[in-house]
Amino acid sequence: MNYAIRKSSKKVGLAPGTLIHVGEQKVEKPRIRVIDFDETHHQEMELQNVEDSFPFKDSPTVTWLNIDGLHDISIIEKIGTHFDIHPLVLEDILHTSQRPKLEDYDHYIYIVLKMIHYKASDDEIQEEQFSLLLGDTFVITFQERVGDIFNPVRDRIRSGKFRIKKRKSDYLTYALIDAVIDNYFIVLENLSEHIENLEDDVLDHPSPDIGHKIHTLKRKLLSLRKSIWPLREVISELQRSESPLFEESTAPYLKDVYDHTIQVIDTIETFRDMVSGLLDTYMTSVSNRMNEVMKVLTIIATIFIPLTFLAGIYGMNFDFMPELKWHWSYFVLWAAMIIVAIIMIIFFRKKRWL
Amino acid sequence: MNYAIRKSSKKVGLAPGTLIHVGEQKVEKPRIRVIDFDETHHQEMELQNVEDSFPFKDSPTVTWLNIDGLHDISIIEKIGTHFDIHPLVLEDILHTSQRPKLEDYDHYIYIVLKMIHYKASDDEIQEEQFSLLLGDTFVITFQERVGDIFNPVRDRIRSGKFRIKKRKSDYLTYALIDAVIDNYFIVLENLSEHIENLEDDVLDHPSPDIGHKIHTLKRKLLSLRKSIWPLREVISELQRSESPLFEESTAPYLKDVYDHTIQVIDTIETFRDMVSGLLDTYMTSVSNRMNEVMKVLTIIATIFIPLTFLAGIYGMNFDFMPELKWHWSYFVLWAAMIIVAIIMIIFFRKKRWL
Amino acid sequence: MNYAIRKSSKKVGLAPGTLIHVGEQKVEKPRIRVIDFDETHHQEMELQNVEDSFPFKDSPTVTWLNIDGLHDISIIEKIGTHFDIHPLVLEDILHTSQRPKLEDYDHYIYIVLKMIHYKASDDEIQEEQFSLLLGDTFVITFQERVGDIFNPVRDRIRSGKFRIKKRKSDYLTYALIDAVIDNYFIVLENLSEHIENLEDDVLDHPSPDIGHKIHTLKRKLLSLRKSIWPLREVISELQRSESPLFEESTAPYLKDVYDHTIQVIDTIETFRDMVSGLLDTYMTSVSNRMNEVMKVLTIIATIFIPLTFLAGIYGMNFDFMPELKWHWSYFVLWAAMIIVAIIMIIFFRKKRWL
Amino acid sequence: MNYAIRKSSKKVGLAPGTLIHVGEQKVEKPRIRVIDFDETHHQEMELQNVEDSFPFKDSPTVTWLNIDGLHDISIIEKIGTHFDIHPLVLEDILHTSQRPKLEDYDHYIYIVLKMIHYKASDDEIQEEQFSLLLGDTFVITFQERVGDIFNPVRDRIRSGKFRIKKRKSDYLTYALIDAVIDNYFIVLENLSEHIENLEDDVLDHPSPDIGHKIHTLKRKLLSLRKSIWPLREVISELQRSESPLFEESTAPYLKDVYDHTIQVIDTIETFRDMVSGLLDTYMTSVSNRMNEVMKVLTIIATIFIPLTFLAGIYGMNFDFMPELKWHWSYFVLWAAMIIVAIIMIIFFRKKRWL
Amino acid sequence: MNYAIRKSSKKVGLAPGTLIHVGEQKVEKPRIRVIDFDETHHQEMELQNVEDSFPFKDSPTVTWLNIDGLHDISIIEKIGTHFDIHPLVLEDILHTSQRPKLEDYDHYIYIVLKMIHYKASDDEIQEEQFSLLLGDTFVITFQERVGDIFNPVRDRIRSGKFRIKKRKSDYLTYALIDAVIDNYFIVLENLSEHIENLEDDVLDHPSPDIGHKIHTLKRKLLSLRKSIWPLREVISELQRSESPLFEESTAPYLKDVYDHTIQVIDTIETFRDMVSGLLDTYMTSVSNRMNEVMKVLTIIATIFIPLTFLAGIYGMNFDFMPELKWHWSYFVLWAAMIIVAIIMIIFFRKKRWL
Repeated sequence: MNYAIRKSSKKVGLAPGTLIHVGEQKVEKPRIRVIDFDETHHQEMELQNVEDSFPFKDSPTVTWLNIDGLHDISIIEKIGTHFDIHPLVLEDILHTSQRPKLEDYDHYIYIVLKMIHYKASDDEIQEEQFSLLLGDTFVITFQERVGDIFNPVRDRIRSGKFRIKKRKSDYLTYALIDAVIDNYFIVLENLSEHIENLEDDVLDHPSPDIGHKIHTLKRKLLSLRKSIWPLREVISELQRSESPLFEESTAPYLKDVYDHTIQVIDTIETFRDMVSGLLDTYMTSVSNRMNEVMKVLTIIATIFIPLTFLAGIYGMNFDFMPELKWHWSYFVLWAAMIIVAIIMIIFFRKKRWL
Repeated sequence: MNYAIRKSSKKVGLAPGTLIHVGEQKVEKPRIRVIDFDETHHQEMELQNVEDSFPFKDSPTVTWLNIDGLHDISIIEKIGTHFDIHPLVLEDILHTSQRPKLEDYDHYIYIVLKMIHYKASDDEIQEEQFSLLLGDTFVITFQERVGDIFNPVRDRIRSGKFRIKKRKSDYLTYALIDAVIDNYFIVLENLSEHIENLEDDVLDHPSPDIGHKIHTLKRKLLSLRKSIWPLREVISELQRSESPLFEESTAPYLKDVYDHTIQVIDTIETFRDMVSGLLDTYMTSVSNRMNEVMKVLTIIATIFIPLTFLAGIYGMNFDFMPELKWHWSYFVLWAAMIIVAIIMIIFFRKKRWL
Repeated sequence: MNYAIRKSSKKVGLAPGTLIHVGEQKVEKPRIRVIDFDETHHQEMELQNVEDSFPFKDSPTVTWLNIDGLHDISIIEKIGTHFDIHPLVLEDILHTSQRPKLEDYDHYIYIVLKMIHYKASDDEIQEEQFSLLLGDTFVITFQERVGDIFNPVRDRIRSGKFRIKKRKSDYLTYALIDAVIDNYFIVLENLSEHIENLEDDVLDHPSPDIGHKIHTLKRKLLSLRKSIWPLREVISELQRSESPLFEESTAPYLKDVYDHTIQVIDTIETFRDMVSGLLDTYMTSVSNRMNEVMKVLTIIATIFIPLTFLAGIYGMNFDFMPELKWHWSYFVLWAAMIIVAIIMIIFFRKKRWL
Repeated sequence: MNYAIRKSSKKVGLAPGTLIHVGEQKVEKPRIRVIDFDETHHQEMELQNVEDSFPFKDSPTVTWLNIDGLHDISIIEKIGTHFDIHPLVLEDILHTSQRPKLEDYDHYIYIVLKMIHYKASDDEIQEEQFSLLLGDTFVITFQERVGDIFNPVRDRIRSGKFRIKKRKSDYLTYALIDAVIDNYFIVLENLSEHIENLEDDVLDHPSPDIGHKIHTLKRKLLSLRKSIWPLREVISELQRSESPLFEESTAPYLKDVYDHTIQVIDTIETFRDMVSGLLDTYMTSVSNRMNEVMKVLTIIATIFIPLTFLAGIYGMNFDFMPELKWHWSYFVLWAAMIIVAIIMIIFFRKKRWL
Repeated sequence: MNYAIRKSSKKVGLAPGTLIHVGEQKVEKPRIRVIDFDETHHQEMELQNVEDSFPFKDSPTVTWLNIDGLHDISIIEKIGTHFDIHPLVLEDILHTSQRPKLEDYDHYIYIVLKMIHYKASDDEIQEEQFSLLLGDTFVITFQERVGDIFNPVRDRIRSGKFRIKKRKSDYLTYALIDAVIDNYFIVLENLSEHIENLEDDVLDHPSPDIGHKIHTLKRKLLSLRKSIWPLREVISELQRSESPLFEESTAPYLKDVYDHTIQVIDTIETFRDMVSGLLDTYMTSVSNRMNEVMKVLTIIATIFIPLTFLAGIYGMNFDFMPELKWHWSYFVLWAAMIIVAIIMIIFFRKKRWL
């Protein structure tokens, strides 16, 4: 998250619309893929030059142009010129710390989302910016790296499921957004497991490092929430959109994706409640353990300190201490000590410390 | 709750409208029941094949088709085809981790609710998804298992109470939703008892496991709230609905069910406030007990440590210690010790520790 | 509050509009009183049968019919039939766990409020449901028990203050609601005293049972808030109401009663803030006292433990311990001990523990 | 604040519009002052009888009638009759526990505010109710005591600044409200100093009575907030008011006074955040000090308790203890003890306790 | 922040529109700069007298008049007269404790923002008030001191980037606001580093002064939030503004600056969440350490106190203590002591204290 800010401060002082890539370079060379399809055919290829995709623009078929890797600014610039995209949109595509948002520029709609990846290797959640330009007959998508979360969509295009339904670019857009949101559930499931484990730890054997673990989990939830929360508004704007780019038959699908978004946000909020409940429970159990430690100390000290005092008394070397001469003194003292100890123990029992 | 997420992540990558049952199989074989009634007659039967219910669709009488058990997808598919239900709705019926919601598809309305069962045997709250399709002359309901909470509604149909009032399918829908919400009160009553018991425990004899109990209760409330909170919006949408499926005379009944929903939500919120108040009170009492333990330790230690020191002094073996020779030393020392102890006790009294 | 839930769960499974009294029976026999008045006369009587009040219905004078005690369902049923009241309204009148609400049924308005009584004898706050039916020329009120909070209103009717002003049933309704809300201030005053006392206790001599007292107070505020909060909306609906039952000249009075409601709610919220502030202050003072206890223990132990060690050293029985033979050893040791103690005390002073 | 409630409960059972003064009598005799001015002249006098001010009512000049002291009900009644004020308004003027509010009665507007005085002598914040009636050519103000916060306004009238600008009664109203709000800043400045002092105390030398001080400050902020928060709505209603009593040229001034109100409310909220932050910081520092105390105790006890044990061993009087006979035992023991102590100290250093 | 209040209380009692500079004087002599440009030329100069800039007012070119330093009231007055600015606006320009706001006076728009500077030398965040008057062909800006954050804007004007795009005064206004907001990111980045460092400290080696550091950070965030939060509304008003001063082509730029504002506010809120999470984590780790200290003490004391007691017993000088005579007593006692210690250690292991 701090990373995002650093990226933003890097752009301070530049004119708006200046194209520079702000973010890590995550692939060596941008990968450009085109899928073009309509009711009767579909065509798929990987391009070396983005210009090769331009002829598809004016065909009536739906064209999906996918760019993986953002560091080659010339590609973005060429697309911008050819598809007549506003410079501020190009700037936002390159500047990978946008909040999810939707901007309607009449002949196209610009959508930014965050893709969340869970990297099991180092238990990290990674964010990636996903930009989408929706035009009448084309969809252009920009990812920071080559990913596989859109493979199911590609498969469905290939298998012809899109064709028979006469779906257009708006349905493709829906399918892509749906794939992104579906992916959130995998991350949520992972977090859910984390929380469950932490819960077991807190309830069964709370160790001091649980504080750190809860802290880390909170941080993750905070950053996840920051990425996903604005999504609600984006999808809701999509639903309310009067744009001619969206056909009426897509409405139920948008409602569906909206429901999923609400479910994701709901779950994150519930996770936050659960984690803060965990912290309370942990603090309670820390207090309880401290209490228990204190009780053990107090019981031992309270029983033995007076007895040790008595032993100290008869260890004194005064010349005249009559008890020392008496024959049964030693045994009487032992008896007295045992009685004192028993009284103490009864007292502790009454106080429910034992 | 984590279960719900796992279920959702299972569907990642599938095309929207793909019908698979996501959830536990809770009955061996789906049970299909039909009740058909109008002002003058009523007919009730259990079917082997769902197709047997289709003739009722076009009759002017009200038909209630009830499916218990969701794992047999073919039944859902047949209903979907015959009653012309949107594939996304069928998908949601089968995917048992929906939030409560209402969708209006002109010729029918789709409603999802959560039924809450309290299982006394293992003190668990179980959720079940309840889907309802409301058409002009039919109501189709889907439950995950065979249950008895709609028996009172069946009884009222049998006894003819519905007939004489010329109620239609919208009134049946109301009656079913009302039965679901009425059932929440039983769970709330059970929780209320839990909270009262916990309250007595916290105030009278707080034991260390109360932290865990409060935690468990909080979790239950959290999951209950997640299931019920969206209900408010569902009922409110029903009330505001302009759908011709709802007659004006049903409005007061919807208002009534809305009031109950508000009461349920209110009660859950009050429970949450009470439970978090309980945690505060528990933490206070833990602190107080620790304080008390500390005081006992401090009083004992503060009185006896100086006395033990004095006894230690006269236990030393220096050749030249004049006091050892004096005749009354021993008794003077005892006197001094008693005076020191009394001063200490007075000091503690002044500090209100005794 | 739990009581309210138990009451609700008792009704589960009954048909809507089924009349049963849910709540405690608080009077032996319902008391039925009628006051009938217009600009020139007023008439007051106590009835044996509710039917005797029916002739008043069609007279142009304002009739106030007051029923104290709800367990005789036949009375409610007769009123329902004669005045043409919706069955759900009758059900709500009998079911004494409603939230405050207002329902407009064109020819009459149904209002439910909660009356709050403070019972000084056992320091309890009691709730009572107050239902009011406002018609063109009549007001029917239902209370759970015989009470005296409407006596001032009766006195004003008797003294003719209502008559000269040509007030109608809407003004009577206002007067009754105002009386109910005025009564809240007495309960608030009582709570305010409680809080003040608790505040003095926390600041001057915090005892361990303050945690319980704060808990009890919180519970009271919680339940009070639950009863009064929805009132705001009720009065606000009254103000915005387009019903012909309300004359324009009553508007300033409704505005007045709305202001009082806001004041009551404001005060409850302030009380809640104050009580949670009290808990913080109490926890702080508990921590401070524990700190003080710890300091006393530490000072005593830190001074005497090293000295006792020294005394222990010279109490050893080794054959060869040169110091034991020296003549001034004992006095040198005393001096050393006093110096050690003084250094310790200086150390504590520097740490501000003394 | 509790005072306000007691005042309200005093009125329970009275008819609305009954005039009694609820509040302390703060001046011996009401003081009645009139300032009458227009573009060319200004006239100022102190009256014995309120009737003397009535001729001004119908003159086209702006008349400001100021009443200091509310206990003489006959004055209020006369004004009410002469200026045709609604009885509920007169009641509110006399009942000094109103929330700030605005009521528009067509031919006049009624505004209630709270004036806040800081009394340095006993470090108290005092509230006073300020009522204002704005008519076409007159402004009538009611204060509980004689104050000086409107002197700058009087000076500006005297100096002719109002005249040359052709301001009317609405501008005078603005000027008075502005004076009241300006006065809040003095109280805020005082509170700000308090908070700064408290902050220094908490950070530099936290003493146990800081809990009490924070508590008192919180209470002050709570009561201040209760008085000022509703002001926002009052001023906002003034701004949106369609009343012909307000000229368009006054709008920027109302916007200005609204900005100040927001600033006051903002500041109070920030103060609340700061004070609750202070409490957190204080609790942290209490915990830290307790930790430090514990460490000192633990270090001393942990070093000396084992050593004292060793000394105790060789203080035993068994006939056969071979070590006692050895020549170097004593010195070896000392060496062993020093080594144990050093090991302990190294252990504490590693744990960062030293 | 307290400073702001003191400034406000200084103005109490003055007539509205009275011009006095409230704030520190931060430059010796106001610096007056003018940049005048249109599509074909640009002219830049520094003036001695503000009057020299007035001829530019009526030229069709865009004129940017920049005043650094506010203490010379005559300059503000002259601008006010010449450009016909409302006296309340002039007052606000001079009174440097305004909240960010926008006021639309038809022929010009008045905008106030806060500029935030991070001073690395003493790790302080400084605020400066930035006022902007936007007219048809001019932009007048007022800063409290000479700063460099607008240099990139100047450079872009000089380089002709503004000219070719035919931008007008509204675009210049956008560019200036954008520069101010861009500058916030630098401060946010700095704070982000602070939080990260603090986080490392809390997790790795929590020292007692972290409480203070968290407190300071909270205060900074609180004051930052107070300055930036109202900005959201300002920019949103700009966007919705119907003013003819804003051309349609500027809309995407305003949307862009709005997105940045939301991002800044979002980040501040996230920082607040993170800092309060840090405090929780710190408190947890303080509790854990206290627990650990207690355990060490308890283990040592619990093992050695009983043993010391035993040693004390056999140090007593009773004449008749049979064990003292036995030959193996001493070794048996040692064995017993070691067994007791081992039992204790096993007990602690079972309790997971070791």
